[in-house]
This record gives sequence, C-alpha cells and structure tokens, in this order.
Amino acid sequence: MKAIVDLNSDLGESYGAYTMGMDGEVLKYVTSANIACGFHAGDPLIMDKTVKLALENGAMLGAHPGYPDLLGFGRRNLDITKEEAKAYMLYQLGALEAFAKANNTTLQHVKLHGAFYNTTSVNEKLAEGIVEGLLEYDRNIILLALSGCLLAKMAEERGLKVAHEVFADRAYNTDGTLVNRKLPGAMIHDEALALERIKMMVKEKKVQAIDGSFISIKADSICVHGDNPKAVEFVKFIKESLEKEGIEIKPLNSFI
Amino acid sequence: MKAIVDLNSDLGESYGAYTMGMDGEVLKYVTSANIACGFHAGDPLIMDKTVKLALENGAMLGAHPGYPDLLGFGRRNLDITKEEAKAYMLYQLGALEAFAKANNTTLQHVKLHGAFYNTTSVNEKLAEGIVEGLLEYDRNIILLALSGCLLAKMAEERGLKVAHEVFADRAYNTDGTLVNRKLPGAMIHDEALALERIKMMVKEKKVQAIDGSFISIKADSICVHGDNPKAVEFVKFIKESLEKEGIEIKPLNSFI
Amino acid sequence: MKAIVDLNSDLGESYGAYTMGMDGEVLKYVTSANIACGFHAGDPLIMDKTVKLALENGAMLGAHPGYPDLLGFGRRNLDITKEEAKAYMLYQLGALEAFAKANNTTLQHVKLHGAFYNTTSVNEKLAEGIVEGLLEYDRNIILLALSGCLLAKMAEERGLKVAHEVFADRAYNTDGTLVNRKLPGAMIHDEALALERIKMMVKEKKVQAIDGSFISIKADSICVHGDNPKAVEFVKFIKESLEKEGIEIKPLNSFI
Amino acid sequence: MKAIVDLNSDLGESYGAYTMGMDGEVLKYVTSANIACGFHAGDPLIMDKTVKLALENGAMLGAHPGYPDLLGFGRRNLDITKEEAKAYMLYQLGALEAFAKANNTTLQHVKLHGAFYNTTSVNEKLAEGIVEGLLEYDRNIILLALSGCLLAKMAEERGLKVAHEVFADRAYNTDGTLVNRKLPGAMIHDEALALERIKMMVKEKKVQAIDGSFISIKADSICVHGDNPKAVEFVKFIKESLEKEGIEIKPLNSFI
Repeated sequence: MKAIVDLNSDLGESYGAYTMGMDGEVLKYVTSANIACGFHAGDPLIMDKTVKLALENGAMLGAHPGYPDLLGFGRRNLDITKEEAKAYMLYQLGALEAFAKANNTTLQHVKLHGAFYNTTSVNEKLAEGIVEGLLEYDRNIILLALSGCLLAKMAEERGLKVAHEVFADRAYNTDGTLVNRKLPGAMIHDEALALERIKMMVKEKKVQAIDGSFISIKADSICVHGDNPKAVEFVKFIKESLEKEGIEIKPLNSFI
Repeated sequence: MKAIVDLNSDLGESYGAYTMGMDGEVLKYVTSANIACGFHAGDPLIMDKTVKLALENGAMLGAHPGYPDLLGFGRRNLDITKEEAKAYMLYQLGALEAFAKANNTTLQHVKLHGAFYNTTSVNEKLAEGIVEGLLEYDRNIILLALSGCLLAKMAEERGLKVAHEVFADRAYNTDGTLVNRKLPGAMIHDEALALERIKMMVKEKKVQAIDGSFISIKADSICVHGDNPKAVEFVKFIKESLEKEGIEIKPLNSFI
Repeated sequence: MKAIVDLNSDLGESYGAYTMGMDGEVLKYVTSANIACGFHAGDPLIMDKTVKLALENGAMLGAHPGYPDLLGFGRRNLDITKEEAKAYMLYQLGALEAFAKANNTTLQHVKLHGAFYNTTSVNEKLAEGIVEGLLEYDRNIILLALSGCLLAKMAEERGLKVAHEVFADRAYNTDGTLVNRKLPGAMIHDEALALERIKMMVKEKKVQAIDGSFISIKADSICVHGDNPKAVEFVKFIKESLEKEGIEIKPLNSFI
Repeated sequence: MKAIVDLNSDLGESYGAYTMGMDGEVLKYVTSANIACGFHAGDPLIMDKTVKLALENGAMLGAHPGYPDLLGFGRRNLDITKEEAKAYMLYQLGALEAFAKANNTTLQHVKLHGAFYNTTSVNEKLAEGIVEGLLEYDRNIILLALSGCLLAKMAEERGLKVAHEVFADRAYNTDGTLVNRKLPGAMIHDEALALERIKMMVKEKKVQAIDGSFISIKADSICVHGDNPKAVEFVKFIKESLEKEGIEIKPLNSFI
C-alpha cells in the first residue's frame, strides 16, 4: 500500500488592514487549509476571501479556532473552563462554516490554534469540552490534533475521526510530546534532516526522539508554514521530495 | 381565515459578567427569539445558554447580527461596505447556527440589530449584501425585516422568505417608515392605544400614521421587549389580549 | 495614637449599555475609589462619569487596571510577560489619569484587578514589571496591594508608597495569603464575625488564620463591595461600626 | 525670516503580532511622531517601543487617537456623540502620555486619525468635544489639524495652540478642503509636482486648487508616510529638497 500524507497550513491570519502570511503561495502546495475564525486572527471579510482562495487551489477547508486574544495572537494561555472551550470552538466552527456553506461546500476538519491547541493536548477537562462539542456539532468533521496526544486519544475513543499531526521542524520527547521551544535542540533547522524525519514518520511510523531513541508516531498530516518566502520554498521542497519518494500528498478526507 | 401573528424579542444580549434583559420571563410569551451573536452583544456561552432556554420555552431560533461595536451596543451607525454587510451577517449567522446544530435544530430566521437593521432598511447597497448573503447561505431562513422596507421588498423579489415586522410602541410616517425617535409623538406610551394599533395592523393590515391618515401595513411579527418587569408585563398583556381577540400567536415558520 | 483605615471599592465597572455596581450608593461610604480603566471593564464615558462621581463624594481616585479580557471580566489568568504587565498597567494608569487631569486632580493610588492582582501578588517577574512601571511613571502614586504579598514587599524595598489591603469576607492562610475560594471556609459570611476580624486587623495588626492561629497582618485599607443592596448595607455597617470603635476612616494619602 | 516647517508621520500602527509601517526608517526624517493609541491601531507594548524609538531619533511625541475600530483601522465613520469624541480623545491621550511620562518626557501634540480626523474637521459638535477636552486636559498640547478647517479655527478661537497640516499628495478644493479621494485628480502622484506644491505652501502660503485658482493655505506641518520603501524614499527626498531650498525642518513646538 502506498504511503499517504496530508499537508496542512494555518491560513487567513490577516486582520482588517493588517496582512499576515503568504496564503496564495502556500496554497499551491497544501491539501488542508486551517482558516482562522476571528478570535486570534482573521475577520469575516478575510475568512470569505480565504475560503474562496483555498477552494480555487483545491485545498480542503478546516476551522482554526483560537483563544479570544487578538492582541496575543492566541499564543498566550488563558485559563478557561471546559464549557468555554466547547463554546469558543463551536462559535468559531459555525462562523467559518457559514462561509463554506455560502460557497457550496462544508468543512473537512478543525484544528485548534496556538495555546488552545497546546492546552487541549494535555488538559483532560478542556479536551472533553472539545470532544463533546464536535460530537454534538458534526461527527463527520475530522479533528486534526497533535499526534498521539490526550485529545486525539479521547476523540478516537468517543468515535470521532482523528488525524494525527506531526511537525517537520520540531524535536520530540520520548513520550511523543514536543520538546519545549525554550530548550536547546527543540527546533530542527536543517532542512535535509527535517525531510528525513518526515519521511521516516510517514513511511515507518517512527521518529528519533531528542534522547536518540526511536519512538512510534502516527503521521496523517504535516504542519507547514507560509510566513515568508523561505518557508514557502521549504513547503515546495517537502511536497516535491515526498512525491519523488512515492508518498502521495492527499487531503485528510481521502484517507481518514 | 383566522388572523395569525408572531411575537419576537431580542434575547441573549448579556455579555460575560454583564447581564441584560429578562430572557427567562419574556420567553414565556414570544414565539420567535432573536439571539445576539457576539458582535453588538452576546458571547459563546450566552449564545449556548440562550439557545437552550429558547428551545425549552418552545420559541423558534433566529440570529440577531449587529455591527461589530460592543461599546455602542450596535446602535451607532458604522460606515460599512456591501461586502462587509454580507460577511458580518454570514459570520454571525453561522456562529449562532453552530449552537442550534449542537442542540439538534436549525435557525428559523434572521433579524438584523439596531443600526444594522435601520441602515439596511433604506440603503440599497447594504440591503443587496444582506440578500446575497442569505441567498448563498440558506434560502429557507426567513428574513425578519421592517414591514415594507427596501430590504424586505428586495428580499421578496429575489425569492427569499420575508416576515414583515411591526412595532407596538412606535409611530409611523405615511410612507411606512418609523417616526424618528427624536421627534415628538414618535413613541406610543399608552398601552391600550398600542394594543388597538397592533390589532388593527394584524387584522386589517393598516395603521394610523402620524398625520392621522391610515396606511397599509403588513404585520407578520410584533417586536416586544423584555428589558424590565414592566416591559414583560406588557408582552403578557399583548399576548393575552390578542388571543382573546381570536388572533393566533404562532412562530413565523408556521405561516411564512 | 488613633487607629486609621481606608475603605476602598472597585467602581466604574459598567461598560457601554451594560450596568454593573451601585457606584452612587457605595461612594457614600468609601474613601478610595478603584476605577476600571477599559480593559476588564469600564469605557471612556464611564471613566469620566465615575471620576466625577467619586470627586463629588469626596473619594480619592485610583486606577484599577486589569487584563485585556472584557469577556472574562479580567478574572481569568492570562499568561503575560513582565513587559506586558508593565505596559498594560501604564496604559490604563495614563488613560484614567487623563480624566483625573481633565477634572483638575491626580490619582492617589493604583490597585490591580482580579487575575492581574492575584498573579502579581505571587509572581516575581510580573511584580517587577509593576514596580518598574510605577517607579518610572510616578513615585507618588500609592500601590494598594494584598497585605504582605510579594508585590507589596518588593514595592516597599524599591521605595514606592504601599498600602496593605485586607478583606473582611475572606479567610487567611498562616502565611498571610488568602484561602482559595474553592476551599471550605474561604468566605466569611457572618457579618458580625467579619467586623470583629476587621477590628482586630486594624487595631491589633493581627488576624486569626484558618488553622486557628493568630498571624500578623497590616491593614491600611479594607476592600468593600457595592454589587448589590445587601453589600452596600454591609459597607455602611462596617463604616459606622469602625467609627463607633474610635477608628478613623480616611483616604490612603492622609496616612501612607 | 527663514521659512520653517514640521514633518509629521503616523507611527506605531502595528498591533500584537501584526506589523505595519517602516517606523525606524521614516523616523530618520520626521520631526513629529503621531503615535497610535490602541483604538484603531497600536497596543501598550508597541506604544512603549514607538515612544522610545521616536525619542532616540529626536522626534517630538504626539498622540494619534482614532475611533474604537481596530477592524476598520479607524477609517470608517462611526456615529459618535460630542461626549464620546471628547472622552475617546482624552482616554487615548492619557494612555500615550503614560509612556511619555515613563520616559521622562511629555506630549508635544495630538493629531486625530482617519475618520476621527475627517469628521471633526467639519462637524461642529464633535469639534467642540475635541476642543473642550484639550482645554481641560492641557492647554500646552498643540492640536495638529487639517489646515484651516473648522476644528482648527474653533481651537484657535478658544486659545489652544494649533498647527495647520498640509498634504503633499492631495489636491485641494477652492475652500481649502481636500478633494475626495474617489474623485479624479484627488491624488498627486508626480513627486516633482508634489514638491513644488509643498514649497509654495510653505514659502508663499498658497496652493493651486483643483480648478486652477490659487488659494491661501497655512502650512505648519507636512504629513508624510512610511508605509513602504518608496514612501520612505519620498520623505527623504522632501526633507533634503526643502532644506536645499533654505527651509528649516523643525518640530512644531519650536515655532507654534
């Protein structure tokens, strides 16, 4: 059986007069678009525009809900309750779905943003809020979550479709969590090494952890970035290299 | 044929720690709930709670989108474009629909709020944005608009379902528009008179304008308020009086 | 020497169309007004109105800066940096000072709000941000902080004027910190007991901790509330009872 | 007597993770910095950073208050009252002054932003709010306003210091107002022509209006932009050309 993987990127993170990200460029390569929903970034006009741009480029649509913290770009932890986690996700999911619906399509997936993503990966109470929200809203929407995390496991156990996400540029601890960015070695800057790691994750379902040991990992989707020309070049490089390797790049809903 | 009318009220206008409106009380009497969507009022937790409260009381759900101006409660005019009008409505419509969907139901209607309601009643460009948005989003959602206004007419011509709204406590100009609140006689404070006016609007499809003449008016829904105990008492009085008169109080989707 | 204490209350916490607190009532009794500055509550019009109302009632003005989280009323912890703590305080301090200046007066004090208050009481890095900000802005502004907390100590060591705040309705741990609201016994509901505790704190500089032992405590100011009629009654009761006891109720700047 | 003029630019318009403007570049040439205050753009960290950057470059500090509309970058008209105009300006003025004060300096001027600037130039009621606010706050702060506009005249009559602002890239009507951007010929794209116009405004106090006639105009300060490398080049060109012409480039407070 041929190996398959999805490429996802955070998009639509501009706001009003402020521009962020080279959405048009990175959409040439990714198969799943995580679109900001107005809490940490994005606004109604930009959501509409980004939905159309993703569709033109053949990418599947996903909601990318964040904390209500535009000032901190959703990167700062905010001490919310389970009910807030659930309601904040539902609100943003629905808001983006309106633009999908107005463009005659639906959402493929949801991926939480920044601190919302990180916290729900490890916090049981908040993870429950997310799982309950998706179960009530639409069991067909794929949850794109950190590979093997608490949220991913809980969602699978409760019958949701889950896609496991891996990172090309991040080191892993032996328990499958990401090495804290503040620690040495947390970021993989060598592009060739990053590619080798991705290939191993996709084809052999394992990765070398920071202590040198090899751990199991599921890689349904690779997170890539479109912040700057160099980042976009790297996305192109990854896509072409994986395809040369015989790995198919396909959206999540074709194999999850 | 028996006369039928809907009673609608703006609900879910609390925000975070701030409380506004006696939602639980007024929901005993109204058939259609206009629920704030987070722009001029409301937040995800309150939207969820209000959707559940409306359903428990048997009221149909409607989105109540406003301008992005919490500070001004959506009452101040904001100079937006047609594209913004459309996208702001879609965003809020979808956000509320998420909570309807999570509670296994759908939205019956949409009614714009405050300055958004007033401006789109007379501004052709903005009205077009609203009509286009609804046509793209869902042709089955009823647009609840100022009786006979430009937006209502345009929406009907384009094939949308439209409910015409009248006000018990407001005077009308001869062209069917509301008398500006700043002018003398704009508000009807006498409850008995207000009731007589409503009865005539519902049963005879006419109303006495501020100059004394009688004009035609369509009254599918009456706007009522739940701001304070006295307002709630008036809603109860209207409902009971209309029913005594043989007028049925039913939600919009039963007759539009 | 006669015992002196200040009574402080959080005020100006309305927002736009939303009303919170019985400011006019509680201002009859308090000597120091902590006025919200637009981040967790309050807005420019309300700040202006509250400054005037406080001055009319003879209360001294204080800034009450919170986290930028209107939705959470500044009660949820937000993971900010030292630089953000400093800049958020300065911004709000200046904003309120503009209304003081326009009314020909200055600020007496600053008291942080909610999660900002709690976190800076124990977090060294954030406390440093606050102290640096005040040193740079104005050494004459009194910092009103949790009695004996890390922030209070650091501010005193660095030469700032500090007022130690105590609570009538809260239990204390043996180290002088407040018992977590979620634990049994955290709140003192018996008004007579609350009064006895305050009297002991003011006159004997000690309080009975939750384990029954007596600990030292400095009580320059007592935090009181004006949320509802019962709360306001309690403020009146405290003020009158303390005065009967020969304790003077005076603003902070008369004795700090 | 030697001709003198000030060069002013809008700065500090980034927000959180969003960057806007080449502040470091344009600050090499301008003498007065209009710093955004958090309503239409800017945030506490950016205000602090921009104040420091302006001071390092020897530019005088000015507040640049806008409408509370980050989403619209303060460019959309919002229907506010006189009291709101006054309070919104005071709030932002104070917020920025806090950072000036923390850096041991004061504000030289205030210039309103976008729709706030345009509306107060012609709306008597709002202009009164601005003038009253400045009179109450600090009579020494210079008001930088559209040359000859209603606000400028009213402020002068009431005893405020006023600096008249002109635009290098905009056409003028015969009454001294700017030609609406939507009309043909509204923008001057030819840099040599723009320079000639500025020189005439500064040295001869007149400008050729769109109908070909010459009108009187006061030019205390020229508005320049730092949005992109070309804009910055033009600022450099203007500064050097004016200096070659014997015109001194000095901050407002040296000659108003």
